[in-house]
Amino acid sequence: MSSRPFLIAPSILSADFARLGEEVEQVLASGADWVHFDVMDNHYVPNLTIGPMVCKALRNHGIKAPIDVHLMVKPVDRIIGDFIEAGASSITFHPEASEHVDRSLQMIRDGGCQAGLVFNPATPLQWMDHVMDKLDLVLLMSVNPGFGGQKFIPNTLNKLREARQRIDASGLPIRLEIDGGVGVSNIAEIAAAGADTFVAGSAIFGAGRTEDPHRYDTVLAALRRELAGG
Amino acid sequence: MSSRPFLIAPSILSADFARLGEEVEQVLASGADWVHFDVMDNHYVPNLTIGPMVCKALRNHGIKAPIDVHLMVKPVDRIIGDFIEAGASSITFHPEASEHVDRSLQMIRDGGCQAGLVFNPATPLQWMDHVMDKLDLVLLMSVNPGFGGQKFIPNTLNKLREARQRIDASGLPIRLEIDGGVGVSNIAEIAAAGADTFVAGSAIFGAGRTEDPHRYDTVLAALRRELAGG
Amino acid sequence: MSSRPFLIAPSILSADFARLGEEVEQVLASGADWVHFDVMDNHYVPNLTIGPMVCKALRNHGIKAPIDVHLMVKPVDRIIGDFIEAGASSITFHPEASEHVDRSLQMIRDGGCQAGLVFNPATPLQWMDHVMDKLDLVLLMSVNPGFGGQKFIPNTLNKLREARQRIDASGLPIRLEIDGGVGVSNIAEIAAAGADTFVAGSAIFGAGRTEDPHRYDTVLAALRRELAGG
Amino acid sequence: MSSRPFLIAPSILSADFARLGEEVEQVLASGADWVHFDVMDNHYVPNLTIGPMVCKALRNHGIKAPIDVHLMVKPVDRIIGDFIEAGASSITFHPEASEHVDRSLQMIRDGGCQAGLVFNPATPLQWMDHVMDKLDLVLLMSVNPGFGGQKFIPNTLNKLREARQRIDASGLPIRLEIDGGVGVSNIAEIAAAGADTFVAGSAIFGAGRTEDPHRYDTVLAALRRELAGG
Amino acid sequence: MSSRPFLIAPSILSADFARLGEEVEQVLASGADWVHFDVMDNHYVPNLTIGPMVCKALRNHGIKAPIDVHLMVKPVDRIIGDFIEAGASSITFHPEASEHVDRSLQMIRDGGCQAGLVFNPATPLQWMDHVMDKLDLVLLMSVNPGFGGQKFIPNTLNKLREARQRIDASGLPIRLEIDGGVGVSNIAEIAAAGADTFVAGSAIFGAGRTEDPHRYDTVLAALRRELAGG
Amino acid sequence: MSSRPFLIAPSILSADFARLGEEVEQVLASGADWVHFDVMDNHYVPNLTIGPMVCKALRNHGIKAPIDVHLMVKPVDRIIGDFIEAGASSITFHPEASEHVDRSLQMIRDGGCQAGLVFNPATPLQWMDHVMDKLDLVLLMSVNPGFGGQKFIPNTLNKLREARQRIDASGLPIRLEIDGGVGVSNIAEIAAAGADTFVAGSAIFGAGRTEDPHRYDTVLAALRRELAGG
Repeated sequence: MSSRPFLIAPSILSADFARLGEEVEQVLASGADWVHFDVMDNHYVPNLTIGPMVCKALRNHGIKAPIDVHLMVKPVDRIIGDFIEAGASSITFHPEASEHVDRSLQMIRDGGCQAGLVFNPATPLQWMDHVMDKLDLVLLMSVNPGFGGQKFIPNTLNKLREARQRIDASGLPIRLEIDGGVGVSNIAEIAAAGADTFVAGSAIFGAGRTEDPHRYDTVLAALRRELAGG
Repeated sequence: MSSRPFLIAPSILSADFARLGEEVEQVLASGADWVHFDVMDNHYVPNLTIGPMVCKALRNHGIKAPIDVHLMVKPVDRIIGDFIEAGASSITFHPEASEHVDRSLQMIRDGGCQAGLVFNPATPLQWMDHVMDKLDLVLLMSVNPGFGGQKFIPNTLNKLREARQRIDASGLPIRLEIDGGVGVSNIAEIAAAGADTFVAGSAIFGAGRTEDPHRYDTVLAALRRELAGG
Repeated sequence: MSSRPFLIAPSILSADFARLGEEVEQVLASGADWVHFDVMDNHYVPNLTIGPMVCKALRNHGIKAPIDVHLMVKPVDRIIGDFIEAGASSITFHPEASEHVDRSLQMIRDGGCQAGLVFNPATPLQWMDHVMDKLDLVLLMSVNPGFGGQKFIPNTLNKLREARQRIDASGLPIRLEIDGGVGVSNIAEIAAAGADTFVAGSAIFGAGRTEDPHRYDTVLAALRRELAGG
Repeated sequence: MSSRPFLIAPSILSADFARLGEEVEQVLASGADWVHFDVMDNHYVPNLTIGPMVCKALRNHGIKAPIDVHLMVKPVDRIIGDFIEAGASSITFHPEASEHVDRSLQMIRDGGCQAGLVFNPATPLQWMDHVMDKLDLVLLMSVNPGFGGQKFIPNTLNKLREARQRIDASGLPIRLEIDGGVGVSNIAEIAAAGADTFVAGSAIFGAGRTEDPHRYDTVLAALRRELAGG
Repeated sequence: MSSRPFLIAPSILSADFARLGEEVEQVLASGADWVHFDVMDNHYVPNLTIGPMVCKALRNHGIKAPIDVHLMVKPVDRIIGDFIEAGASSITFHPEASEHVDRSLQMIRDGGCQAGLVFNPATPLQWMDHVMDKLDLVLLMSVNPGFGGQKFIPNTLNKLREARQRIDASGLPIRLEIDGGVGVSNIAEIAAAGADTFVAGSAIFGAGRTEDPHRYDTVLAALRRELAGG
Repeated sequence: MSSRPFLIAPSILSADFARLGEEVEQVLASGADWVHFDVMDNHYVPNLTIGPMVCKALRNHGIKAPIDVHLMVKPVDRIIGDFIEAGASSITFHPEASEHVDRSLQMIRDGGCQAGLVFNPATPLQWMDHVMDKLDLVLLMSVNPGFGGQKFIPNTLNKLREARQRIDASGLPIRLEIDGGVGVSNIAEIAAAGADTFVAGSAIFGAGRTEDPHRYDTVLAALRRELAGG
């Protein structure tokens, strides 16, 4: 298990895009740590979501929290620059989506952002081996990105443990993030397997589509409680 | 010149994405006819904007006006279905972006939407010839899609006149839409060349980023006045 | 209308692939002129059918009739050589599917086959203009290739007339072939619009999946009767 | 060595495509266990063979034996659905050919088929690591797929041993299949290295292109004898 | 026929790449007007030749004559910038190779170069229609680019006449260039059909691979004489 | 550390392309062992350099030294044949750039050349595992290929050690080559980590762009001295 503080990163893919600024303000006010920003291009995954202009709009709206951009796009190099300019805090991409993984990581850091690799459920962890010193975070997908209605893939727990070992062996302060099917019922187990940063979408935003400005407090508190050991 | 009523379609690409529902409500309240929805995929054009979930969010927010989806994506067939489900009213695409143009048009109509082709500045109008009976609208680009900061390409006036002749010769009720660099200073001339539907982005939303809920009234009135002959 | 003899080319896509040699023998014995061979690659069209080895097997089985290969693949150049070796008589491809249309046509002729271009329903006929002297046949699609269950697109009649004019104006012996939704009820009208070579799939093979070796006689006779003017 | 019964899967790529139903009936009557069905798309490999319609025709012809579909195509997801509908029993694909390997495997199982990954001669076995629980078979290529006239690559014996260890360590009932250059002279050695399922093409069908309905008995008996230890 | 002075542009593809600077100096000393620079990328055409660094080396070597860059690459936008920096004088590309033809032309002009479109033998001339005011030259291919050993395609004479009419009708000073199989025996006929700029490769460099520094004088004089009417 | 003699391979990418034959002659006369030939296609990397015709020109110019071709292109199979014909001595490619790595290696050897794989900084070494017996050299990139102005990536030293172990364990005479940021100041350290073949570009050619025919002697001597242990 990680010794670093746990972070919760609500995925705005489950928020209300008609009033995104307000949604993000409220979920942050309820205690979320990061804003998770899912970018899909209709090529790497069969869906198209939101791009750099939406990220920029959140910054213009006054959002100060870290915006954690997950690129489900291929190729990645040109759009990395767009997200740096749009105010991203961290940018992650899939190693299969860049011909020049080392360089893409370096571009992100050169732009002042934290850099990371994302691993699809079947993707081998060897892609980390030679770039450990350029990683600020590693994101393991516990569902297949870009497809709706999926549950947490149980095998991800083993993969988390394996990734945790590699990170600990490196001695480097690399965050281990998990995305897909995370909720109150399994977040403790996932943390025990080594994750320290948790993306949650429908678990958070699905919990209360009402007018109550405090409607995200309950679910975030429940997630925190689970992480704290019940 | 078209004998049909002129329509003004503000492009939400210039709106504030942090409060998109409110922006769209206000521009419609100020008299806009359609909502123009620009979809870019980082492949057909070097930018990635917004996809079906944002369209759906506008419908869920209560927007009833026509949503006019311009696909700057390649290929188009899979995402056409997503936009039909997300509540699009019309869907247009570039003939170069589909291997099977006739079928893509038919898919759009089968989904209950109006169908159209978009012509890049250099694209020959011959792509209309054999599908006139499947077109509800034709969109001529007067700038190159996906790139910022461009002015209306003057040659488009000739292309509009040529397109107008083809439409009039067909006797079919096909709208002739124009997108790129349209504003108060040139909308009358563009209408005179044959356009009847006008996309405007920065000309409208750029005109008043304030708290005034009526801030779009002035520019829309000015555009209408120009269209009415000054 | 063409002054050349009409040819009927059953598409083996509707035949029984478990006993293809026998099917082809029987349909030829019933009076079919050509064997139409539909090649799909799961890229240019969303289906994958049969390739050069199946063509070769028909030749090895003793089929002597012309085999008319329609490539619904992209790119085309490498597989053209395979089909020449496999015994194709004519090879047609879509102009959008080759970067070097003139050269692909020349490759086909250099291999001793007849060469042709295929036009999707929306594809402009201008692709013929500068290669008329390298065309042995022109194939107009009256449905969108690669998708099942479609009806003859009525607009194709106008396109046939336009293609017929271009061919007649050239004075060259170019066959004008039609493919999609052709049957007893419309073949006369299609011939009147200028086609002289008729692909038919389900209209022929669908007519009699029985053990009767003469089961294709009736439908072929009906098609001939229609072509002869009723 | 595997403790499971050995299976022999003749590749119909070497059969007579003009009378495929009869060929398959005879080879099954001679004792073959599975029908191996090689699908090539002219993109992932430079050849185009046969698709779902041919698979369906075999089922319609009355073939009941397992049909083992090897997809040498890229991408794979759309055509997986076609083969499920066409009656495939197992479907295998190359990890390089799917952006979302875990999901493609799950799609196959959700369609009621057995799922597997295929490894090109140079492809690392790490692609198995995180999806072992979704694999019913692993296919090692002992030649490069899609190219003719190749011999069994000797290094595959080491790779088989390595794959056998991974499978045995998992305790899961995953078949280990081998394809390429398998024949009477080397099948025993291949089995000793860990394979339990053997694709053979020319070794079987090449052995007797005559009218004798029992012509495949001899070679299949010889293969069985070798597997039984001489 | 054009009223502008004829220009001869030797293609350095036929020069000696081991001493390119000297070759170019000599051919210019023999009276050549432009240096024609053929760029192939192994994607748009099946060959890979030379890129921006070689262009830059010629400038550094002291070559002052116009360098006429013909891009046989796809896509074109990124490399246009490289050639502008490398000292190109004119840059032409194929309309099929850019999604945004108008913009690519504008990029070239914005970089201070002359801009042009290249037409493959079969490509329709309609791609000129809406960008005439952005063209400095039009290049018609009289062979298929990227493939060796081809002869001048006779049909190109008709296409030249058609292109000449379009240019003359525009009243714009657009050069009409021809490339492929041009030599002493046919240059007069090609000029009569409307070309005013002539690329020649093997006709020039093939004529004298000796140590004589004046070895290109004879062939260039012969070409000039033919252009002057014999 | 390797027990084989060290080889220095100047990259001609830093030479003067206007007089390439002379440059190569001089650097060989100064003691270089191999000519390193960098091929970029504007697809696998964002640059386009030189192709087979330039290689052939060097051979025609009389260059006898080994020409070591590094393909930064995707795909590789077609151009491998071109380079074999053009006189390449060794050909290396990236495993990500070929669907059929084993076959591409075999093609190179069948053409009489030495074969090798190139590893980008982040690419896992597992791609060697099953083709060790088909490798004559392994090239580790110590910068990202195709991008200018980079320094030696320090982590490559660890990767070199890991690759050296694999090679030594195999007992096979595989050269271990390094490319990127190699110079007098670090070549000894790189050799100590296991490399035995050293590509150097600007370190060599940048050292003396003068008229002195011996201008490369000094830097090559310095590199040798460092390799010899100071």
